[in-house]
Amino acid sequence: MLGNCLENVRKNVPLVHNITNYVTVNDVANVLLACGGSPIMSDEPLDVEDITSICGGLNINIGTLNQSSIKGMFLAGKKANELNHPVLLDPVGAGASKLRTDTAVNLIKEIKFTVIRGNISEIKTLALGSGTTKGVDADVADAVTEENLDSAVKFVKDFAKKSGAIVAITGAIDLVSDADTCYVIRNGRPEMGKITGTGCQLSGLMTAYLVANPDNLLEAAAASVCVMGLAGEIGWKNMKSEDGNSTYRNRIIDAIYNMDADTLNKGAKYEVR
Amino acid sequence: MLGNCLENVRKNVPLVHNITNYVTVNDVANVLLACGGSPIMSDEPLDVEDITSICGGLNINIGTLNQSSIKGMFLAGKKANELNHPVLLDPVGAGASKLRTDTAVNLIKEIKFTVIRGNISEIKTLALGSGTTKGVDADVADAVTEENLDSAVKFVKDFAKKSGAIVAITGAIDLVSDADTCYVIRNGRPEMGKITGTGCQLSGLMTAYLVANPDNLLEAAAASVCVMGLAGEIGWKNMKSEDGNSTYRNRIIDAIYNMDADTLNKGAKYEVR
Amino acid sequence: MLGNCLENVRKNVPLVHNITNYVTVNDVANVLLACGGSPIMSDEPLDVEDITSICGGLNINIGTLNQSSIKGMFLAGKKANELNHPVLLDPVGAGASKLRTDTAVNLIKEIKFTVIRGNISEIKTLALGSGTTKGVDADVADAVTEENLDSAVKFVKDFAKKSGAIVAITGAIDLVSDADTCYVIRNGRPEMGKITGTGCQLSGLMTAYLVANPDNLLEAAAASVCVMGLAGEIGWKNMKSEDGNSTYRNRIIDAIYNMDADTLNKGAKYEVR
Repeated sequence: MLGNCLENVRKNVPLVHNITNYVTVNDVANVLLACGGSPIMSDEPLDVEDITSICGGLNINIGTLNQSSIKGMFLAGKKANELNHPVLLDPVGAGASKLRTDTAVNLIKEIKFTVIRGNISEIKTLALGSGTTKGVDADVADAVTEENLDSAVKFVKDFAKKSGAIVAITGAIDLVSDADTCYVIRNGRPEMGKITGTGCQLSGLMTAYLVANPDNLLEAAAASVCVMGLAGEIGWKNMKSEDGNSTYRNRIIDAIYNMDADTLNKGAKYEVR
Repeated sequence: MLGNCLENVRKNVPLVHNITNYVTVNDVANVLLACGGSPIMSDEPLDVEDITSICGGLNINIGTLNQSSIKGMFLAGKKANELNHPVLLDPVGAGASKLRTDTAVNLIKEIKFTVIRGNISEIKTLALGSGTTKGVDADVADAVTEENLDSAVKFVKDFAKKSGAIVAITGAIDLVSDADTCYVIRNGRPEMGKITGTGCQLSGLMTAYLVANPDNLLEAAAASVCVMGLAGEIGWKNMKSEDGNSTYRNRIIDAIYNMDADTLNKGAKYEVR
Repeated sequence: MLGNCLENVRKNVPLVHNITNYVTVNDVANVLLACGGSPIMSDEPLDVEDITSICGGLNINIGTLNQSSIKGMFLAGKKANELNHPVLLDPVGAGASKLRTDTAVNLIKEIKFTVIRGNISEIKTLALGSGTTKGVDADVADAVTEENLDSAVKFVKDFAKKSGAIVAITGAIDLVSDADTCYVIRNGRPEMGKITGTGCQLSGLMTAYLVANPDNLLEAAAASVCVMGLAGEIGWKNMKSEDGNSTYRNRIIDAIYNMDADTLNKGAKYEVR
């Protein structure tokens, strides 16, 4: 049950090392605390190996990458691999610039990721590879819909198989998949797209879930996606007429803070394919 | 009408590239989403040209500049000029340090800005030029008041003419001017000064308005100033006795999220000189 | 009385230069505005000396240090010493990595700090010195409790004497001490640990209090700790059942914004040893 994954996070208080963008970093930290984890941020190459060594997992987000932090990502990722810590990649903006695409592609080559989590456009960029037509079939549409769900599920399983990672594609419908099994998740609200960084927040949250559930990584990843979407639904219910996206941001994090296993088990909307 | 400018932003969803400080960047992103735009942040020199190329406009804010981001500002600004994208300069702290003053002055020399937006002290520094007494007459007082309004309007028109940019001076009374026409705007609340980054937020918002209203740049800039000030008034009405500046920040962004053309047209307080 | 320290901050509007981490920097800025101060952030080595020169005090926080900002910390700290400005060190993560420990230890060697503020683990690391067993006796427990209070008070006084700085150890019980006198403070709520950066916020707040109360530095430091803890208590009273750590963050800053001398004098819970 997904609720067990949540309880394991609250019980184990996973310490998560985040190399993440400066836009949404405060929210990522507060989401990690809200879910029962604990955050540390460090991107300096001289610092990251020590920091990742005292943590349980590593969250790499390339949102405001720079030449120094890119070095930090590779060093931390390799150290985390050595220590068998779960490592998550959030390839923010892959496809939007050569530096972002190349960095994400090279990270995947040199580091073994437990999860790669992004939107459909970012994941398609990675599946195709940098500037080549090789890689898995990425003839998937630009959004996962009920109409193209079958081909999207095939795409995500293929890329999971090829990359060796769990792949999470988030959008109106979320897919969380390894080579064999795909969770199709229908939690969430469209208004979440009006808040900066709900994706970044999910990446932090998911890393905590991976650390606390080493024997159920796929389920843990799916649980974290349900938590985020369900928090978006609960937070929306608490909105008043004068509230907007800034208050909604707070309401979502608050809902993660207050969520328990029972609420998650009852509110999670998913099927397994 | 200013309301048309607002509607054009909601219709066109302008993508804005921000090179901005790490203090207020999250609020800038949420304000851009609130008004109907979409934010991307990138300051790495190897990344900025690609990012600015996929955007509609560029917002350069020197609030926590560093040697790398300064390079990024020049590269992105030149690329945006090549592509005829609107470019805004927010010269945070010009006059407070040699690096900030020099950077702002050199940016104005090498890049054609659509708008320069700052407080009276920053704009005076730029009008005088770095360490020289040349430039337009900057014998304007340290705040724009009803008493010195005539000379302030003359000052802002002169600097707009000299710089070739629309110039926006924000404070208790806001001035938005090109060489010929000056909007004098009286929206806003003094308590907005107790929140970090309302100026930075306005710069992001204004850039979105410029992108979505290419044929009415002056009116678009003035509209965005009215939106910000009016949101400050609406947000203040929603405050309760135990609320303070942190909740007020949320309330202002919420009010931008909920604002429509009719509210703006009715609430905007300005005259044209 | 502590209330006088608060009133001096509101009267003098101290301008505080912060070299601080990008995780919690926005909250630090809003807390400084809430208490009546004014924040500037700058970490670029070419910028920091000018910025610190126009400020009244300097807050150095090593939370997301990098090679450039470390240089900035030394340059700014030395300039602030030259100008006799109060300087505070927040050694975030000292003990967690070699870079952080070394940086904090070297900062203490080369810069005269007015206050060193951290949690017990960070302060113990500094008291022991980097990788040596020299320094004051650090055989203090991992948390300050009613049971080990006597030895903790002795420890903090010893380190204050050795370092020449006021030392503030914050946790469930807070200690603020010079070589002779120790304030033992019992304000605050355990839920404050579920918000990122309450320690960073306190460091910014405390620096403002030091600047505005140059003749009562120890009392000013203690007053700021009481303000933060009391704001945590007041903010908690304003929480509703659906609220969580994100709203609590806003409530605490709001409470600082609304706090007056009378509220502080009545709500502060401390003894002097």
